Amino acid sequence: MDNARSPLFAAIDLGSNSFHMLVVREVQGSVQTLAKIKRKVRLASGLDDNLILSHEAMQRGWDCLSLFAERLQDIPPNNIRIVATAALRSAKNADVFIAKANQILGHPITVITGEQEACTIYQGVAHTSGGRGKRLVVDIGGASTEIIIGKGFEAAALTSLDMGCVTWLEKHFKDRSLTEASFQRAIDGAKDVLEPMVQQYKELGWEICVGASGTVQALQEIMVTQGMDETITLAKLHRLRKQAIGFGQVEELDIDGLTLERALVFPSGLSILIAIFEELDIESMTLAGGALREGLVYGMMDTMQQQDIRQRTIQSIQSRFQLDTTHADNVAQTALSLLAQCGEGWVKEPVAQTLLTAAAAFHEIGMTLGFKRDGEHAAYLLNHLDLPGFTLAQKQLLAELVRHYREQLVPINGQNALSSTSANRLLRLLRLAVILCHRREKAATPTFQLKAKDDVLTLSLENGWLKNNALMTNELTLEEQRQSDNYWPLTVIA
Amino acid sequence: MDNARSPLFAAIDLGSNSFHMLVVREVQGSVQTLAKIKRKVRLASGLDDNLILSHEAMQRGWDCLSLFAERLQDIPPNNIRIVATAALRSAKNADVFIAKANQILGHPITVITGEQEACTIYQGVAHTSGGRGKRLVVDIGGASTEIIIGKGFEAAALTSLDMGCVTWLEKHFKDRSLTEASFQRAIDGAKDVLEPMVQQYKELGWEICVGASGTVQALQEIMVTQGMDETITLAKLHRLRKQAIGFGQVEELDIDGLTLERALVFPSGLSILIAIFEELDIESMTLAGGALREGLVYGMMDTMQQQDIRQRTIQSIQSRFQLDTTHADNVAQTALSLLAQCGEGWVKEPVAQTLLTAAAAFHEIGMTLGFKRDGEHAAYLLNHLDLPGFTLAQKQLLAELVRHYREQLVPINGQNALSSTSANRLLRLLRLAVILCHRREKAATPTFQLKAKDDVLTLSLENGWLKNNALMTNELTLEEQRQSDNYWPLTVIA
Repeated sequence: MDNARSPLFAAIDLGSNSFHMLVVREVQGSVQTLAKIKRKVRLASGLDDNLILSHEAMQRGWDCLSLFAERLQDIPPNNIRIVATAALRSAKNADVFIAKANQILGHPITVITGEQEACTIYQGVAHTSGGRGKRLVVDIGGASTEIIIGKGFEAAALTSLDMGCVTWLEKHFKDRSLTEASFQRAIDGAKDVLEPMVQQYKELGWEICVGASGTVQALQEIMVTQGMDETITLAKLHRLRKQAIGFGQVEELDIDGLTLERALVFPSGLSILIAIFEELDIESMTLAGGALREGLVYGMMDTMQQQDIRQRTIQSIQSRFQLDTTHADNVAQTALSLLAQCGEGWVKEPVAQTLLTAAAAFHEIGMTLGFKRDGEHAAYLLNHLDLPGFTLAQKQLLAELVRHYREQLVPINGQNALSSTSANRLLRLLRLAVILCHRREKAATPTFQLKAKDDVLTLSLENGWLKNNALMTNELTLEEQRQSDNYWPLTVIA
Repeated sequence: MDNARSPLFAAIDLGSNSFHMLVVREVQGSVQTLAKIKRKVRLASGLDDNLILSHEAMQRGWDCLSLFAERLQDIPPNNIRIVATAALRSAKNADVFIAKANQILGHPITVITGEQEACTIYQGVAHTSGGRGKRLVVDIGGASTEIIIGKGFEAAALTSLDMGCVTWLEKHFKDRSLTEASFQRAIDGAKDVLEPMVQQYKELGWEICVGASGTVQALQEIMVTQGMDETITLAKLHRLRKQAIGFGQVEELDIDGLTLERALVFPSGLSILIAIFEELDIESMTLAGGALREGLVYGMMDTMQQQDIRQRTIQSIQSRFQLDTTHADNVAQTALSLLAQCGEGWVKEPVAQTLLTAAAAFHEIGMTLGFKRDGEHAAYLLNHLDLPGFTLAQKQLLAELVRHYREQLVPINGQNALSSTSANRLLRLLRLAVILCHRREKAATPTFQLKAKDDVLTLSLENGWLKNNALMTNELTLEEQRQSDNYWPLTVIA
């Protein structure tokens, strides 16, 4: 495919609070965003008690759609998906809005059912999150909340509930005061809504839990700003609830990392999330890489239907940055073999293998910019690239692993994807693998034996290798010093 | 070509002071460095008065070559170039050294003549420097200095002189003292060597002057560190000479931006450069992007033989980063047309067109990393990418132009490729061009008329355009405010 002019795709989502338009293209197995347009239309706030949309609310929606229409003109009709969710599901006069909206856009809007919404959200998560286990997905929208259990690309249970952070704000924080009582009412109200589905979900079970939507995004931003790790737990949610109560009023909320834009619906979203954690006994949750709009976008792209998301991401990045995959594979195999030789438990976390493989796959990405300081460049790229399948903390660890993959050795600090000990052990192995593979040919890599006793490593190379390979000897001698200088004894023998 | 496994190339240069090995591959029209190995062999210092190389010096050379040999094994023999320069040209027992060296390397070394060296240096400069005019190239090595005049890839005059920064150090700064007198002797001595070629070179003439080698590199580093612009002038050279004299001794030299590694041969190199400036009446000089090793490398790559280096760089980067070239071309044409409509002299510098075109060509490069903050990413990439044909200052300006090509407008400060007024005028035009082309199709760009009166711009669009294009109207209205808020009045009419 000619990537320089790959076709455009557009996904439009007429949400209860905001309308969003996303224009993307596919670049060698990655989705690249070219434009994002968002308007706070507040459709749901124009619904009266009889579920009739006001003319003013409809006009706000039509005005927004006429902006979107301008960009839609140049996108192939088959590459456009436009969906409307809760507010238009429930409005009795939705047909009036839709008829004119279709005319403005020149493309049909689909009002999706709650189950269809849940299904699309699940696809968006599946296409952007790693791991093979069963997953529980939670998405708290403005007027509905979707909860799904699935594995790979298959959803096993889909639920859409009639509560959201905007409707819960109006129902339980109408006077905008933040008290123990108002939170408790909001949480109890959410539990009533959840009650009918709890049994089925608990029976199905799951291994990992991810959250989409603004509430979870806001939590992640707060935790990153406050220097916490990226895992959301019930304890952290209750701590934030207490912090919020301390401010007394929604307008006074001033939590580090919480943006003004998200503050208004934060307490209501938090209440729903606490109810979900407590009812489903969730231990921890991480942020999903995508949801509804990503589900729409990936659904249009046939070439993206691949089971292992992390593998797809690695291949896409290697191709986009013209990395030498033969060499990268050799470094990865060497590093994994070194890790295996250190014995089980030397690095405890099971995900370590995956991260070591990815670090090896990406370690030369900084050379795209330049040979000098290529580790720094690699860290910048990995910190900022979109890497579907890897969480934010995992991306940060990958960046730190490649930052000092050669030359000066600086221990890794300030990541929380793995324990500090494990992260630095992976760094030591990656560096050794790079040296052992420096001739860039599998056949030119010596056979080796690595023995680990706590932090003490002994690397034995095949007989006579060092004598006949002065440059590698040089590098390994330097590396012995560098690791040992960091109180990580390394001895190389041959 | 499969970039993931494009063949390797190696260039080895047995210099009078250091031996260098460079391993590269070609990636879509760019040269990517995979390894650099350098050893200070100090061959020239092992030459006695009878031009006999000592055994110790030869042994240092052979030891170094056995390191290089390890990496050479995996590189196709046709992709290897090994040359030796001044020290081995003059050593009477060079054949003893070469015979064993050939054996160690398994590849033949070519001892090149001064004229061949000058020719290869010129190719290295031609492949990495922009501009179409006649150029004067100066390369001050350890034991020889090459001076060339050429145009495009054709050299018109080639000279190799028997002086270099190492030999001049030993001859004129033997006791390491830095005085008016020692500098004057070094400068006068260099002028004597230059004298026979001056007449011919002045008659041939040139339009631009570039310098290669460590002395000019050191000057660039000093000027960048001290916040000066990148143009080397005689006045700056004399200022540095006076500064150096102030330190009294070579070992005491402590000039901001001068590294320890370069300090020893800096006064001698500076003296030679001053002599060249004065004898040839050079007004200004910039640093070349490459010299001898780059000449060897590019000489092996058939696909790189293209006349317009900047055009080759733009195409290579667009291809490597999968940029949408149709859209980039449309933005570039629109921006150039806006510039033309502002009238001659609105932006004075002739190179402005080239820079505006390049900024338009690259403006979406940051989206490779992500849509959010893509301008920041673009600036990072352009600041660190190797862009043959663009000087350091030009790269920095390109980075500043793309940093704020959309959304928030922040005036450009702290570049010196153009006047500050010109740089910011280009920024205003680039931003307008991006808005006018936002639908990414040439046919969807309105016809326009731009009038400029000093900083006051009036943009007229075709009749009725704004009424029918709400999104663009929105963007242009915002842009009117943004530019006007910076005291750059902009009015859009239709």
